[in-house]
Amino acid sequence: MGARAIIAGDGALPGLLAAAGPALTVRLQGMPGGTAGADIVARLERLGQLFNDLRAAGVTELCFAGAMRRMPVDTGLLDPETQALLPRLTAAMGQGDDALLRDIVAIFEAEGFAVRGAHELRPDLVAPAGAIHGAARPDGDAARARAVLAALGPLDVGQAAVAGQGQMLGIETLQGSDAMLRFVADTAPGSRGVLVKRAKPGQDLRVDMPAIGPDTVALAAAAGLSGIELQAGHVLLLDPAALGAACAAHGLDLWAVP
Amino acid sequence: MGARAIIAGDGALPGLLAAAGPALTVRLQGMPGGTAGADIVARLERLGQLFNDLRAAGVTELCFAGAMRRMPVDTGLLDPETQALLPRLTAAMGQGDDALLRDIVAIFEAEGFAVRGAHELRPDLVAPAGAIHGAARPDGDAARARAVLAALGPLDVGQAAVAGQGQMLGIETLQGSDAMLRFVADTAPGSRGVLVKRAKPGQDLRVDMPAIGPDTVALAAAAGLSGIELQAGHVLLLDPAALGAACAAHGLDLWAVP
Repeated sequence: MGARAIIAGDGALPGLLAAAGPALTVRLQGMPGGTAGADIVARLERLGQLFNDLRAAGVTELCFAGAMRRMPVDTGLLDPETQALLPRLTAAMGQGDDALLRDIVAIFEAEGFAVRGAHELRPDLVAPAGAIHGAARPDGDAARARAVLAALGPLDVGQAAVAGQGQMLGIETLQGSDAMLRFVADTAPGSRGVLVKRAKPGQDLRVDMPAIGPDTVALAAAAGLSGIELQAGHVLLLDPAALGAACAAHGLDLWAVP
Repeated sequence: MGARAIIAGDGALPGLLAAAGPALTVRLQGMPGGTAGADIVARLERLGQLFNDLRAAGVTELCFAGAMRRMPVDTGLLDPETQALLPRLTAAMGQGDDALLRDIVAIFEAEGFAVRGAHELRPDLVAPAGAIHGAARPDGDAARARAVLAALGPLDVGQAAVAGQGQMLGIETLQGSDAMLRFVADTAPGSRGVLVKRAKPGQDLRVDMPAIGPDTVALAAAAGLSGIELQAGHVLLLDPAALGAACAAHGLDLWAVP
């Protein structure tokens, strides 16, 4: 059996995967999280080089983990493999994040690598159905935010939304759920509303799984919210113990529904 | 033929209706815009009194104009007519703004008043299809934002959205489109994106018609946008000349599509 490599972005997740067994760490130049401590430092423009480096290290299984972002490609640095892939990547990019990430997975699979999700390596971190901290309150505001996300999912928009007192107070856009929570804090404080966080229907959980950590709980509390609802089986709890402690400190309920 | 009354909220629209012929001005205690200059000062809690005052002044036709907001009802001040209406108003309130406004129209109609929309009194202020200032660019970002609004409309959410470079950058929530544009300015400046503003499918244009004025153009420019698309026939241009001047000053295209 071959080795495993983590293609690591920003945040706590790459570190949490260390508990799932030995793995090489790959980091991409220019991505959030930096390249310190990486076993392989790669460039988006030199995917052919990355394929070779992974094979030379005996890697057969890949896991993408942590936040990445779209970044400009320096066409002067392209290797032939990446040059050949550029038209399809550009086309996928125009169809949204889901399409782009699905295509990236397909490219690595076509090179013979198995792509595993962080939730497969650490199933103990996946949100279970029911109350996670405090009480489960899946009605009212939570149901309204859930309906909005269900309507937007087919358009590849929105992993998170906030409703309070029956009204929508925030709908996640490109800027992400932290920016949305800061907007709610600035413009609709004291709503006692609910943050709902779910995967989009087309989302490939192996490469783009929603995650929640203690920082999100603190931001939700600062926005005056009273609870957070997750999609059971589809959201990673980044450090369940710290998450529970943050909920307790801020008086927030945390639960998951199918 | 009876007299006309404008039930006036905040903003420029009540003043623009003066050109449509003589009318009494009604203002509600506590609403944005104040009560200065009103012919009749009314209270939400005393609708029976308002019906009487309107009839005493010979009013047969009403026009709601300008921004209003939900406000707390002081139950100690209720007159019997409002007391009797409270259960149905409370129920409508729980179903969202559209339902509430439709119910308010129905209540005034049941009292024998004809309810006319601002667009019926000033058809010259309604956005026409095609280029209004600069070029019409109804593709790409505009189409994406339009698709998001179409998905949300049945849920009574979203009269406005911003897309830039193929991505959603803002979706209007309770806080309104100005707050959304400030969010885009703070979190995604320089996108050269497009603001799309449309009526929701269930929206009664007689009482809740989307409107755009020079202030919106300035906010869109501050958010780094390059254009604004309206729904033809469904958005009021608050002062078309000032709107054109604002577009010219900020280099924004303004157009409408069906």
